[in-house]
Amino acid sequence: MRGHRCSTCTRVETESDTDSDSGTMRCISCKEYYGRCDAGTCKECYEEASETEEELKREIDDLKAKVAFLRFWSPLDHHITHRSSAGPCFTDVVLVASSDDGLPGTASSVPVPAHKAVLASRSPVFKAMLENEMEESRSGIIKISDVSYDVLRTFVNYLYTAEACLDEQMAYDLLILAEKYEVKHLKAYCEKFLVSKLNWDNSFVSYAFAHQHNAKHLLESALSLITDNMDKLTKREEYMELVEKDPRLVVDIYEAYLSKQVNTAALKDSSSKKP
Amino acid sequence: MRGHRCSTCTRVETESDTDSDSGTMRCISCKEYYGRCDAGTCKECYEEASETEEELKREIDDLKAKVAFLRFWSPLDHHITHRSSAGPCFTDVVLVASSDDGLPGTASSVPVPAHKAVLASRSPVFKAMLENEMEESRSGIIKISDVSYDVLRTFVNYLYTAEACLDEQMAYDLLILAEKYEVKHLKAYCEKFLVSKLNWDNSFVSYAFAHQHNAKHLLESALSLITDNMDKLTKREEYMELVEKDPRLVVDIYEAYLSKQVNTAALKDSSSKKP
Repeated sequence: MRGHRCSTCTRVETESDTDSDSGTMRCISCKEYYGRCDAGTCKECYEEASETEEELKREIDDLKAKVAFLRFWSPLDHHITHRSSAGPCFTDVVLVASSDDGLPGTASSVPVPAHKAVLASRSPVFKAMLENEMEESRSGIIKISDVSYDVLRTFVNYLYTAEACLDEQMAYDLLILAEKYEVKHLKAYCEKFLVSKLNWDNSFVSYAFAHQHNAKHLLESALSLITDNMDKLTKREEYMELVEKDPRLVVDIYEAYLSKQVNTAALKDSSSKKP
Repeated sequence: MRGHRCSTCTRVETESDTDSDSGTMRCISCKEYYGRCDAGTCKECYEEASETEEELKREIDDLKAKVAFLRFWSPLDHHITHRSSAGPCFTDVVLVASSDDGLPGTASSVPVPAHKAVLASRSPVFKAMLENEMEESRSGIIKISDVSYDVLRTFVNYLYTAEACLDEQMAYDLLILAEKYEVKHLKAYCEKFLVSKLNWDNSFVSYAFAHQHNAKHLLESALSLITDNMDKLTKREEYMELVEKDPRLVVDIYEAYLSKQVNTAALKDSSSKKP
């Protein structure tokens, strides 16, 4: 139970919502009593806000139904469920994961079936590749290099469903593919996930990764986390590695830190000058 | 400017939100002054409600992005834009509108290109038709009877985009197709539109149509409108026509009216018994 006793009013508050002379009112929403200093909105605004909330919820239901309608069954689900019956799902292209090791017969070589129309609709890179009668369009085989079968499968599935089950490694791998094939929605999805998983331990890896793959939102978040912990910076092993490997990135950290210090100083300065 | 002067409090309300002894407070949301009797929520609930609203809006933005990602470009747009270049969009089937008049060379005979995978994904009827190697699957031509080219075009476009520009006639025509090919999302979309356009003039047509095409939501709304205007019922031309053509539907109207009367009477009865 929450208390709404006013801490600054001197009036004695009696817990009654009918006594118009008392200092308390009863909240329409939580039904708790509160004092004048804890007053929120008038009744009219409360009712308007409730209507708005209902409207927003209806809009969400409509959009969810639209997503469910537009969401494709993935040929992968189909592939697995109907593997024995080999039912047709009208695929006209396969994607094949090719690792650098090039070992034949590994799981990587299992082709992932897809539709040219779906690939072209989701990725401008696939669109150009398939519409321009390049090798991939003629052969019906698209080779995706440096990727495991699992990542490729998850990538293709996302193109059909806009959904993926992520862990950090999968998010890193998918973001690389999303960047390469210009699937903006997936890139944003992975970036959001990685930002939510940011911590001091993975901040350096995330920072360097974000820089390499042009993930601005992740880059800013990682940079902010690092510059909040400058006292621990130089003690980290990754710091030394980064100085060796890519000193420009370390300079960026110091520049961001300096800029933050200047801003904080300006803020302090202006607030101390207030009457 | 809205006024929130309390009409039942006897206290003299001074318009100041700093005077803690006065009877007025200032609404956090609309910034107007209000009396105790117009009080809505406490500050904590107001803040929670604002957070909830922000969260719902973020969810809507996410869902809209998902819809934009999953939404297909329609091969029709493609067809028209690139008619001269005849760029490939990997369609593997065409739909042809065939009117009963069967006149060749009319606009109806222009084939509408599509993808088997999209049709099968949106409609269980197309799925069965195409997967079971029926005539349509072999020939790559699906004939849609009793429909104009415009309606067929709009129908196919909806399967790709979940969007359609409706007027009443288009909504009727599309609902029939949606019913026939079991495209639930489109049926609900048309029904919602037709309910929004219901009025006394079209109530009979809508009622009979809804009955014929199993549109429950539209049926209930039309029935409710008709039974609210029973005094005008028997004077309508459509009433006499319906008695001739389908008396069972007229019986349903009277039954609904009777049931409404009984409910209203029961409600009055229970409220008059209150102390």
